[in-house]
Amino acid sequence: MSHHHDADVVVVGAGMAGLVCADRLRLRGVRVVLLEAEPQAGGRTAGLDLDGEAVDLGGQFIGPGQDRVYALAAELGVRAFPTHTAGANVLETEAGEVRRFRGMVPKLGPLALLDVARAQRRLDRLARTVDPERPWAGTNAATLDGQTFRSWIDRTAKTAGGRRFLDLACRAIWCCEPSEVSLLHAVFMVRAAGSIAALTDFEGGAQQDRLDGGAHGLAQRLADRLGTAVRLGAPVRRITQHESGATVTTADGTEWCAGHVVVAVTPPLAGRIEYDPPLPADRDNLTQRLPMGSVIKCVATYPEPFWRRAGLSGAALSLRGPLTLTVDSSPRSGHRGILIGFATGSPARDLAGRTPADRRTTLLDALSRLFGPEAGTPTGYLERDWNSVAFTRGAYAAVFPPGAWTQLGAALRKPVGRIHWAGSETSSRWYGYIEGAVRSGEAAADAIAPT
Amino acid sequence: MSHHHDADVVVVGAGMAGLVCADRLRLRGVRVVLLEAEPQAGGRTAGLDLDGEAVDLGGQFIGPGQDRVYALAAELGVRAFPTHTAGANVLETEAGEVRRFRGMVPKLGPLALLDVARAQRRLDRLARTVDPERPWAGTNAATLDGQTFRSWIDRTAKTAGGRRFLDLACRAIWCCEPSEVSLLHAVFMVRAAGSIAALTDFEGGAQQDRLDGGAHGLAQRLADRLGTAVRLGAPVRRITQHESGATVTTADGTEWCAGHVVVAVTPPLAGRIEYDPPLPADRDNLTQRLPMGSVIKCVATYPEPFWRRAGLSGAALSLRGPLTLTVDSSPRSGHRGILIGFATGSPARDLAGRTPADRRTTLLDALSRLFGPEAGTPTGYLERDWNSVAFTRGAYAAVFPPGAWTQLGAALRKPVGRIHWAGSETSSRWYGYIEGAVRSGEAAADAIAPT
Repeated sequence: MSHHHDADVVVVGAGMAGLVCADRLRLRGVRVVLLEAEPQAGGRTAGLDLDGEAVDLGGQFIGPGQDRVYALAAELGVRAFPTHTAGANVLETEAGEVRRFRGMVPKLGPLALLDVARAQRRLDRLARTVDPERPWAGTNAATLDGQTFRSWIDRTAKTAGGRRFLDLACRAIWCCEPSEVSLLHAVFMVRAAGSIAALTDFEGGAQQDRLDGGAHGLAQRLADRLGTAVRLGAPVRRITQHESGATVTTADGTEWCAGHVVVAVTPPLAGRIEYDPPLPADRDNLTQRLPMGSVIKCVATYPEPFWRRAGLSGAALSLRGPLTLTVDSSPRSGHRGILIGFATGSPARDLAGRTPADRRTTLLDALSRLFGPEAGTPTGYLERDWNSVAFTRGAYAAVFPPGAWTQLGAALRKPVGRIHWAGSETSSRWYGYIEGAVRSGEAAADAIAPT
Repeated sequence: MSHHHDADVVVVGAGMAGLVCADRLRLRGVRVVLLEAEPQAGGRTAGLDLDGEAVDLGGQFIGPGQDRVYALAAELGVRAFPTHTAGANVLETEAGEVRRFRGMVPKLGPLALLDVARAQRRLDRLARTVDPERPWAGTNAATLDGQTFRSWIDRTAKTAGGRRFLDLACRAIWCCEPSEVSLLHAVFMVRAAGSIAALTDFEGGAQQDRLDGGAHGLAQRLADRLGTAVRLGAPVRRITQHESGATVTTADGTEWCAGHVVVAVTPPLAGRIEYDPPLPADRDNLTQRLPMGSVIKCVATYPEPFWRRAGLSGAALSLRGPLTLTVDSSPRSGHRGILIGFATGSPARDLAGRTPADRRTTLLDALSRLFGPEAGTPTGYLERDWNSVAFTRGAYAAVFPPGAWTQLGAALRKPVGRIHWAGSETSSRWYGYIEGAVRSGEAAADAIAPT
């Protein structure tokens, strides 16, 4: 009933981190196998064809400073192109009023705008005090990690409008409410990206570019290149370490014996694997406290990007919800219109419990309010609730609550015997982004098989 | 290789909650099986003989208001007796000075004492605003859940001495640092116990009484009564729900088919079971964010309770650490001396990574500083790091970080199909205490098989 195989390295999880790690190891002559629980590779990048267009249901944007993912795309022959941004953005107020604006910050009234500008400035300044390699070690780490982002917003913003906009920004960036994030984690993420603008901007920021065929195409090409080294539908249940190596057991009882194991899944899912001997207390306890963000992404296709005719960019922010933000995700040619929308944080949780029909109606209503009735009758429609995907259980990334970085952060990246940790959450640059995943996969491969 | 069995109800986890639940179901004629991962029943109550005395390595105290555990003890023929409290308590300052004091609060200087008294008063007042059945539903729930206990302490206490003592109280009650706890959770715990004094006091509080033979004796008697219904060494890996029932699969492939399943393990461990169909997003995400507290309990035995001769009660608090607190746990007869010490929160994490010899030396040094050199040479010595126990992974209880109660708390107790949740964390009274476990086990049994 059970089967035994050998490899030099077993990589657990064929998200971008695992794929990059396995690919690099293979190129260095290492015998590697990549075990993936889902029936397809890609992890938090995922996609399919909708109306003949490759659409991303997961991560899809890249931007300046994300050197490793641009290099990977170039190597795989995938071209990047700019996200469509021409036209006015829109903001939906809590009362449901839809206002046009240019740039990244909508018209909120002068005092609220001052609030937001001050908050951005302070976050950037705080970010410079954090060492992304050791966020727990800074002189003000305990102070930053002792409070929620909510407490900081309430202290920093003097106006209700400013506070509401910062709440929205938190929801958009971290897929959670400001109460759930440690201020230190918020600041670390800014530092890991470079600046708050790097996180939030299209041009010059993390949403600047897209990839031909979608970001999931990168994952697919890597998986293709790895060929039979990738085993799909093979959830890992147990990792046993012994003197001469490690044994990785999948759900069907197959055993893989290897010299090293790279666990390239999210922290909470890494915590759900059985380890023998059990993991040290610090590592285990860390995986108990890093929940994934909550996001439902929807994709709607139209015969053309009709909003452009009305002078709109397709980018929207909504204080009313449930869509936190939308972006024009039409194909490069513009011969068809595609809008993507993100319900994040609290609205994503509210929607998760509804029926698919109710959720679809609610989200299309939200698009209609932002872009007019045409948005309510797409030719194609898809959505993905990442928190319901059995072997992902949330996105974009794990969120550090207060106290986690300073109490247990040192256990995040530290190998345990023959087990190495990868995944975007282990990266000190671009935590939570595709770039972070690529970097973490490269780093794990380098640790095991240096050039 | 795999075996199939049938039962009306499968209970997962033979801690106090699972034992009480299974026992009550059995008394009502329900065919029940109780699957326990560890080689013994008891969960977070655990004990053994040390120098011929039954000592508790886990939960051991009970007190007024904990009606169900007193009733259970009476039913099982186990007598309660008062914790020894005669004599002076001691406080070790951060500088290592050891001061005697009476009552619950040491001599901190008049302003610091005012701080502590004010904090106690405010916590009690806040507690009255929380409905323990629905902590997320109060009018000030979002405000309380948006901040850490750390932020509240810093705002409430005006003196460094007051703040340090409140930090110590947090470490003693929640086994974590104030940065890690939501203020709402802290207040909920107070409400679930009745008052802050109910949590902290010996006489009149949760540490008032002990049990002949130890609290783990209750668990053992229940397990004995359940007989072959308890299966030890049977970790549950998967729970599958289908139209006609549920199938529970253990690590060795044995399958138990039942009409109902009660999962009576801690929230993080409940999250590590595989569910088919996967759990709803809200329940799954909740289990990603409720880490267990960190505690190492040590037990040292002496020929006699020598500290009593010196006019000491054996109770100590230490601001220096690593022992947060100690208690006289000598047998009722007093014919032998037993001290128990608790390293909790940050000190417990520091100690977890050390060698057993180093840890023992460090903890005995700490006892010596508090009670004199005699304390450093016990006749017997034991310790347990609860975070290292594979199927417990922390104690006393799970800790809600900010945002968890208000965003996802409703998923804590809500059954999912045929699956019911038990364990002290699911109790609205005495959350985290043995009493909470007993109540949760009774409630789960009542939900499945009402009288």
